[in-house]
Amino acid sequence: MTSASVGRPRLIALDWGTTHARAYLLGGSADGPVVRDQSSGEGILSVAADDPDRDGAFAAILERMVGGFLDEYPGLPMIACGMIGASQGWRTAQYRTLPTELAGAGGLVVIDTPRGPLPVIAGVKKSAPEPDVIRGEETQLAGLAPGLPEGQASTVLLPGTHSKWALVRDGRLLDFHTAMTGEVFALLSGDSMVARVAEPPAPGHDWRIGFDRGLELATGGVPGDVLFKAFTIRSAVLDEQLPPTQVIDCLSGLLIGSEVATRSVAQTFEGPILVCGGEALVERYRRALDRAGLASRPAPADATVRGLWHSALGAGLIKEEQWLTSLA
Amino acid sequence: MTSASVGRPRLIALDWGTTHARAYLLGGSADGPVVRDQSSGEGILSVAADDPDRDGAFAAILERMVGGFLDEYPGLPMIACGMIGASQGWRTAQYRTLPTELAGAGGLVVIDTPRGPLPVIAGVKKSAPEPDVIRGEETQLAGLAPGLPEGQASTVLLPGTHSKWALVRDGRLLDFHTAMTGEVFALLSGDSMVARVAEPPAPGHDWRIGFDRGLELATGGVPGDVLFKAFTIRSAVLDEQLPPTQVIDCLSGLLIGSEVATRSVAQTFEGPILVCGGEALVERYRRALDRAGLASRPAPADATVRGLWHSALGAGLIKEEQWLTSLA
Repeated sequence: MTSASVGRPRLIALDWGTTHARAYLLGGSADGPVVRDQSSGEGILSVAADDPDRDGAFAAILERMVGGFLDEYPGLPMIACGMIGASQGWRTAQYRTLPTELAGAGGLVVIDTPRGPLPVIAGVKKSAPEPDVIRGEETQLAGLAPGLPEGQASTVLLPGTHSKWALVRDGRLLDFHTAMTGEVFALLSGDSMVARVAEPPAPGHDWRIGFDRGLELATGGVPGDVLFKAFTIRSAVLDEQLPPTQVIDCLSGLLIGSEVATRSVAQTFEGPILVCGGEALVERYRRALDRAGLASRPAPADATVRGLWHSALGAGLIKEEQWLTSLA
Repeated sequence: MTSASVGRPRLIALDWGTTHARAYLLGGSADGPVVRDQSSGEGILSVAADDPDRDGAFAAILERMVGGFLDEYPGLPMIACGMIGASQGWRTAQYRTLPTELAGAGGLVVIDTPRGPLPVIAGVKKSAPEPDVIRGEETQLAGLAPGLPEGQASTVLLPGTHSKWALVRDGRLLDFHTAMTGEVFALLSGDSMVARVAEPPAPGHDWRIGFDRGLELATGGVPGDVLFKAFTIRSAVLDEQLPPTQVIDCLSGLLIGSEVATRSVAQTFEGPILVCGGEALVERYRRALDRAGLASRPAPADATVRGLWHSALGAGLIKEEQWLTSLA
């Protein structure tokens, strides 16, 4: 049952990743395009690689995620993005190559499920000068592209486990670079000789103080890359130059600062960098960008939903663009 | 009982680290200075931080390590190096500052044990331009220093969990830099998205092939630091540019190559770099140094034993230098 102010649902969209799955019933108004959504921890890792019936296992998750939506609105088209289309997923959606139309149908693979066809959006790879891959973030980029200025190459930064720096122009992905910043941070702040000198922050703790120390360490005049500088944080505690409560923030600043410094040496930016991610992480990255003299702005929070919608339009699964025209 | 060809033991020396302890009965001939030695996993971590009787717990380990030696040769002097002198150890031997006489008595702290006085060699710290600390490796350096050319600043590289690049002249430590290369390698090759695309090498596997790919990645023209380049390894596998069996070697090459590249930009080297460590690791580092155009030579394997001996001499615990004069 939908209220009178909400448009009829027109699409079921899935963001199906490594450790999570999220299903959206889409088609509401510009104020609330998501009619309903549901999350679960049933990412692709929840199906064992040696499961004799992987098709059946994935179909069962799909049923739990969208079965209720389809019972209520039979015949709605579906679309999915994320690791579900990786070689470890349900069916491989071969990577597209650069440059690529972000909301185009290139590489789309259609899985024949008990609930009907499920088109899966392909990731993007590049082979030179260095290999790199994207899977999942291309859909966020497809959602953000309509909001970028026309005729110029904009940089979109998607921080996270694997940070992506993407160059987008007129709806096309031109290039991208991935940094393992989030994953390295998790490893070093979890169990390392740096983490061992850390103490949990006290109430009222201001993360900016330690974070800024890390940014200084990343970009200061002292030679050395993160392999050397991460140990400097430990030494700074032993030498009583850094309080143990600031260690984790300082590590975060060092890694994010190093990532930003690397990209700012490698490329020049036209216009502000659009930063898309969780609020706290976006704040940290924007602080680092600001210190590096780079303008930035935060992205809308619903990039994935927008991207799934635009991709469904681009693939001809739905016919008219309704609620997104006013937002783009 | 010692054979006739072995000199009377004159020193009990301990290398007492975080996760291991090793005791040496020293004083043999130049061909075999170690009369006997014994290893155990009873590093400082084996005594709980909140143990109500930490003194007793450490004394019990000491008894197990050297009690037999002392029963056989009562009154022998003792000396120890390593994390046993850290704040998490038995008693803190405050760091010396740069420059410091490597085999001098500076900072030595003497623990009053049930088996007599146990002098513990102090680590070294520096505060500027960036803080750094050494504890344990200073003793290896004290062992290697007599073999270095006089009147010039030699670089000694001690690869490992925390790689040390030390600058030594005429028995004095002038400067040092630490890289977390070994620890970061262990973290990334253990459980990361890079490790997930790795496969174990087949019999007859040549580590050099993947390692050299990693060196190229570290020093090639593609911009980016290890945060970016580590992900490149994963992408290279997904793009079928790198066989999964070469992933771990490639990661090793990337990290070691980055460490070497960083130091080779930051400093110039007088004479060959002396590389001291386990055989396999020394081979990898020397290969990376060679590719970077830096001459190197391997160090004698018994640097710690030599250093404990020289430090005991420097501290006046033993009076004559016997077996080491011919080796130095």
